[in-house]
Amino acid sequence: MDAAQEAHNREAFRQAVVNTLERRLFYVPSFKIYRGVAGLYDYGPPGCAVKSNVLAFWRQHFVLEENMLEVDCPCVTPEIVLKASGHVDKFTDLMVKDEKTGTCYRADHLLKDYCKDKLEKDPNLSAEKAAELRHVLAVLDDLSAEELGAKIKSYGITAPDTKNSLSDPYPFNLMFQTSIGPSGLSPGYMRPETAQGIFVNFKDLYYYNGNKLPFAAAQIGQAFRNEISPRQGLLRVREFTLAEIEHFVDPDDKSHPKFSEVASLEFLMFPREDQVSGRAARRIPIGEAVTQGIVNNETLGYFIGRVYLFLTELGIDKDRLRFRQHLANEMAHYAADCWDAEIECSYGWIECVGIADRSAYDLRAHTDKSGVPLVAHEKYPEPKEVEKLVIAPVKKELGLAFKGNQRMVVEALEAMGEEEAMEMKATLETKGTSIGKRYARTDELGVPFAITVDSTSSVTVRERDSKQQIRVNVDEVASVVKEVTDGVSTWADVLWRYPTHSS
Amino acid sequence: MDAAQEAHNREAFRQAVVNTLERRLFYVPSFKIYRGVAGLYDYGPPGCAVKSNVLAFWRQHFVLEENMLEVDCPCVTPEIVLKASGHVDKFTDLMVKDEKTGTCYRADHLLKDYCKDKLEKDPNLSAEKAAELRHVLAVLDDLSAEELGAKIKSYGITAPDTKNSLSDPYPFNLMFQTSIGPSGLSPGYMRPETAQGIFVNFKDLYYYNGNKLPFAAAQIGQAFRNEISPRQGLLRVREFTLAEIEHFVDPDDKSHPKFSEVASLEFLMFPREDQVSGRAARRIPIGEAVTQGIVNNETLGYFIGRVYLFLTELGIDKDRLRFRQHLANEMAHYAADCWDAEIECSYGWIECVGIADRSAYDLRAHTDKSGVPLVAHEKYPEPKEVEKLVIAPVKKELGLAFKGNQRMVVEALEAMGEEEAMEMKATLETKGTSIGKRYARTDELGVPFAITVDSTSSVTVRERDSKQQIRVNVDEVASVVKEVTDGVSTWADVLWRYPTHSS
Repeated sequence: MDAAQEAHNREAFRQAVVNTLERRLFYVPSFKIYRGVAGLYDYGPPGCAVKSNVLAFWRQHFVLEENMLEVDCPCVTPEIVLKASGHVDKFTDLMVKDEKTGTCYRADHLLKDYCKDKLEKDPNLSAEKAAELRHVLAVLDDLSAEELGAKIKSYGITAPDTKNSLSDPYPFNLMFQTSIGPSGLSPGYMRPETAQGIFVNFKDLYYYNGNKLPFAAAQIGQAFRNEISPRQGLLRVREFTLAEIEHFVDPDDKSHPKFSEVASLEFLMFPREDQVSGRAARRIPIGEAVTQGIVNNETLGYFIGRVYLFLTELGIDKDRLRFRQHLANEMAHYAADCWDAEIECSYGWIECVGIADRSAYDLRAHTDKSGVPLVAHEKYPEPKEVEKLVIAPVKKELGLAFKGNQRMVVEALEAMGEEEAMEMKATLETKGTSIGKRYARTDELGVPFAITVDSTSSVTVRERDSKQQIRVNVDEVASVVKEVTDGVSTWADVLWRYPTHSS
Repeated sequence: MDAAQEAHNREAFRQAVVNTLERRLFYVPSFKIYRGVAGLYDYGPPGCAVKSNVLAFWRQHFVLEENMLEVDCPCVTPEIVLKASGHVDKFTDLMVKDEKTGTCYRADHLLKDYCKDKLEKDPNLSAEKAAELRHVLAVLDDLSAEELGAKIKSYGITAPDTKNSLSDPYPFNLMFQTSIGPSGLSPGYMRPETAQGIFVNFKDLYYYNGNKLPFAAAQIGQAFRNEISPRQGLLRVREFTLAEIEHFVDPDDKSHPKFSEVASLEFLMFPREDQVSGRAARRIPIGEAVTQGIVNNETLGYFIGRVYLFLTELGIDKDRLRFRQHLANEMAHYAADCWDAEIECSYGWIECVGIADRSAYDLRAHTDKSGVPLVAHEKYPEPKEVEKLVIAPVKKELGLAFKGNQRMVVEALEAMGEEEAMEMKATLETKGTSIGKRYARTDELGVPFAITVDSTSSVTVRERDSKQQIRVNVDEVASVVKEVTDGVSTWADVLWRYPTHSS
């Protein structure tokens, strides 16, 4: 089968799938009765069901299993935020205009289509010319406005619809612009990604995490990109739901405590060097990829592994899934290293997930612009904070409590081994102020039942509103809590059934 | 306790709650490091958890339990859609500007604040003047731009921050405007409500529902309103998540088959007449409210009941919840009747859910603008479509199947009672083409297991990919399907355990 026939078959297959999906309202072009708007689609009932299941699984797999901090920020974003992040200046594509009708095209798309078309369909193409066109395709993302313009001129590329001549390429910002408030003086944009909402909240999230690294924050929400020429169905659209994670890590220690859980996963990887030297993607265990330095560090490797699990559990065919490292020239303005999960479909290998090491690009940018330092503090290499058990009896309090036996108690405490002391500490804390503080904290959050593990066989269940506590077997606790939260029993019912436990 | 003291206490209580919520990152002002933007808020981790639980419960309570058709449309909306819906021309508030600084205010807010302040704090207010101010408050929503302007002038109201004089009131459109595509020639707006996405899809959804009324469509998504002066914390913000339902019903038959399930619910209602005549809200069973014509019809009543159940199951105090009917002057431009679920909080009684009979306003508007008829067909009053069992043996086919026994079979069929015939029909359909077509339809949707009820004790389970069927006891079917979908067993495992069943 030659390339043209193959392309034809792919197109026929795609059309059959698209027709079915549209007929069954998985998705339809938006505002169809008004002849639609390119790049905007509606999900119908089965599409909504799929989307809602995928998002629920995403939240379960990433946010809940990894204890990430979820945030939910507005789409409307003031200019200053996106000026700081670089989007106002750099989030652009090069555009050309039909000089007579004003119709706009993406300059690189026109050049790409021209080269592919020539290579596929021109039987008289010289070997030399073919090599040149292939080279253009390879460096397409690298071309400046001037270089793109020169190629378009020298190949005589015209507007596809009218054959009119084209303007020189110029940058077009892909953000939807708007104005916030009634004065008309506060420019804003619809966010092109959800990540900036996480970065500007870094300080609060870091505090929420007890001023400790690493931690991850996640956000699910709409993103908006005013594409010059939307195409490829749902693949390049002007509005879409993004699910993003930003994992903040000590730049000097990118190890990950759970890396061993994914290290043996083996899947198709396509490192930068292999792409440049023309090799094919190959199966590499992610643990080996990190050891060999193909993937820079454990944290990056861990998330590549987790994304692999997420996608294959969703049902993506392992043989049509690969992780491709970005070439130096294709990385976004903020990225230090980037791996895309690509899925092979009728359009070829398509990026579906991007896993980028953005370094501290964004935090630094917002620190500079806002004057608010978005930094994490760790004193190292020396002195280092180490958790260490020190038994330091407070003699005055022990004297009040134990009177004549004080000395004996102090001596016993000082003689205790670390393990024994930890056990006693745990016991005391279930009764002491420390646990009280914890209860106060969860009360404030609205957690209705707090469970404290007393021993390997029993736990204390505490109800928020009454502050009453009962002691329950470990085996029974899940069903007791479920019973009460489902409304099958009341707290009074279980209170009657189990021994109460005073704190 | 006098009014001023009460207001002070309410404010102190609110501040304490707000401080806790912000400190625990339930929500925080967005873009805080850039000093924020009025009316935009972020949800932090506990806020996201609450929001996600509420939305999941909403989807369960309304969409899934009522078999609604869920859709998911873009926020970016072309002008023509919102021109047709009336939002471009009528979705406005009256605004005044500080004549020196240009700061904008909502005209009705300034007048309202002035009247309330005078009534609460001016000890020298004459009875006559007080009555006048109370009248102004009552008709506030009714005042034209000219009337508002005249009041502001005659009371000498100035800009709150500077005491500068104010401009005349003029309408300000509350939609965020943008431009779609690179040409700059296609104006668009961020949707102010999600309902329009449902209306423009009416034709497809009606078809999806088998061209039958009634049906309901639902959407959860972001909505955007460029408020002139956002206030009251999360209550009047510039971007928020809306969950909307549009229920399409025969205008001549607004009965609801499940109305009896809610009819005995009794809760605080505040009909229009009671408001006008100065009576208080009172407890009325919703069934009675419909019978007495206080609520116009069963469908409206049914949804009021369902909203009541939704809110109280979420934990809203029954005594702080009432359903208030809109006065004629306060209804939105599209509404024929409207009931708000209002919750009493520190700001007074606040609208939380609006339940409006929009008549066919929107469908008619989009039909006119687009030229695509958004209508449902039902022939009535006569002839009417009635499902009736008619036994009509196809003699030719029976002859081929039963040869010499044909006549006996035909006679037996014709002699069958209705019940007996229905039973036979059900049995045949599990084997006939009708069930086959249904399988084809669910196969296309991707439903992995189809269950057909064979009798009161056993069902057929059919696996999509293999098309194999097994017969399973009713008691066991749920656990069998769960086993396979959870991956505990494979289809091959259960195929081995249960008798196969050929269709």
